[in-house]
Amino acid sequence: MIRSNQNTTLKHIRRLLHEKRAREREGLFVAEGEDLVDAALAAGWDPEVVLEAGVDVEPELLASVSALGSGARVVGIFRERWSERGGELSVYLHGVHDPGNVGTIVRAAHALADGPVVLGPDCADPFSPKAVRASMGSLFARPPARAGFGELSGTTVALARGEGVPVAEVSAEPPVVLCLGAEREGLPRDLLDQASAVAHIPLRGGGPDSLNVAMAATVALYERNRMAGRG
Amino acid sequence: MIRSNQNTTLKHIRRLLHEKRAREREGLFVAEGEDLVDAALAAGWDPEVVLEAGVDVEPELLASVSALGSGARVVGIFRERWSERGGELSVYLHGVHDPGNVGTIVRAAHALADGPVVLGPDCADPFSPKAVRASMGSLFARPPARAGFGELSGTTVALARGEGVPVAEVSAEPPVVLCLGAEREGLPRDLLDQASAVAHIPLRGGGPDSLNVAMAATVALYERNRMAGRG
Repeated sequence: MIRSNQNTTLKHIRRLLHEKRAREREGLFVAEGEDLVDAALAAGWDPEVVLEAGVDVEPELLASVSALGSGARVVGIFRERWSERGGELSVYLHGVHDPGNVGTIVRAAHALADGPVVLGPDCADPFSPKAVRASMGSLFARPPARAGFGELSGTTVALARGEGVPVAEVSAEPPVVLCLGAEREGLPRDLLDQASAVAHIPLRGGGPDSLNVAMAATVALYERNRMAGRG
Repeated sequence: MIRSNQNTTLKHIRRLLHEKRAREREGLFVAEGEDLVDAALAAGWDPEVVLEAGVDVEPELLASVSALGSGARVVGIFRERWSERGGELSVYLHGVHDPGNVGTIVRAAHALADGPVVLGPDCADPFSPKAVRASMGSLFARPPARAGFGELSGTTVALARGEGVPVAEVSAEPPVVLCLGAEREGLPRDLLDQASAVAHIPLRGGGPDSLNVAMAATVALYERNRMAGRG
């Protein structure tokens, strides 16, 4: 039973939770909470370490390490995994900095697509605690992939506010990659120019001029399924 | 220039940020950050108080009060406002506890609907700091309404995972109220029984059995617009 916050495993967990560099250097990350650790085990991931409050470690100590407000009762260290690009429908993100958005899109793609989320340059670390939590376990079932826009194959549909055709009117042969850009800036102009098609989600006038990137990705995924007869 | 953290206005702001009861008792709430305060002013809201860092208050003091990680440079106290129900398309929420979800849906409805978000029982306070931030200013342009399910008029379409028809196949005469329930439990059975129609968002097999409630609301709003020829 761990009883000191100077314990090396606790210090390791703290480092992996709070330091992106430590995650990158070691290729490890932390899942906090029973739901996430269970999702990892269910998806066949072998933890490097699992600590359960009251069994392996004093509950207050584990809670003090956690990035969760309420403190986790189970914490696991896992080795990062990445998927290969692929699928008839997938998502490519460019410059999406918010880990909550990245995690939410990982979950939405798991529910609505057969391919992984492909992370281009300048995206939030999908293994950061906020992203892992927002993915609600989908990170384990469908880890993200990494690639540049130029490496994508199939039909690239770039989502851009107010540009191109309504997303329900894009004709695109599968495999389709839905491409979305940063929260404010959107996709860079040169990617829009290179994309197979440009589309937007029609909004009413007088309101915000854009949806949150996770909302936009989810609507676009839904619409591709509907058009393919899966809706 | 405020130079003490015992200043009564700073204490008031702290209370309104952190205590739901204080907000309810006083009918006041706080918007943090230039973007939100600007959105409030642009929507014609008169602040009770505005504090700007370096002008009205020492920057470190204002930052220490803030619920934002980075600390706000402008903070305003505003009086809560509620909308009346209405519109050809609106959203009703029942038991949505997460303030981030409530705020996100307020924003999505502002972008995709003409009516307000109607909050039923057991929803998060839309004037809590997390909800205000997630609404990204839409709270000011389109404040939420309050009502019970029984007070809704028009066609009520209840979203429920795996029940009813696909959301693209619901025929519903406007005004339409899209009804969504709590994050895990969904809508109570008696509301599903009373709704004009029940619909689901089709998901692929093998993934999560539901979308986050904010995602589901956004997809359903998008779909209603598309069916109405606004997509």
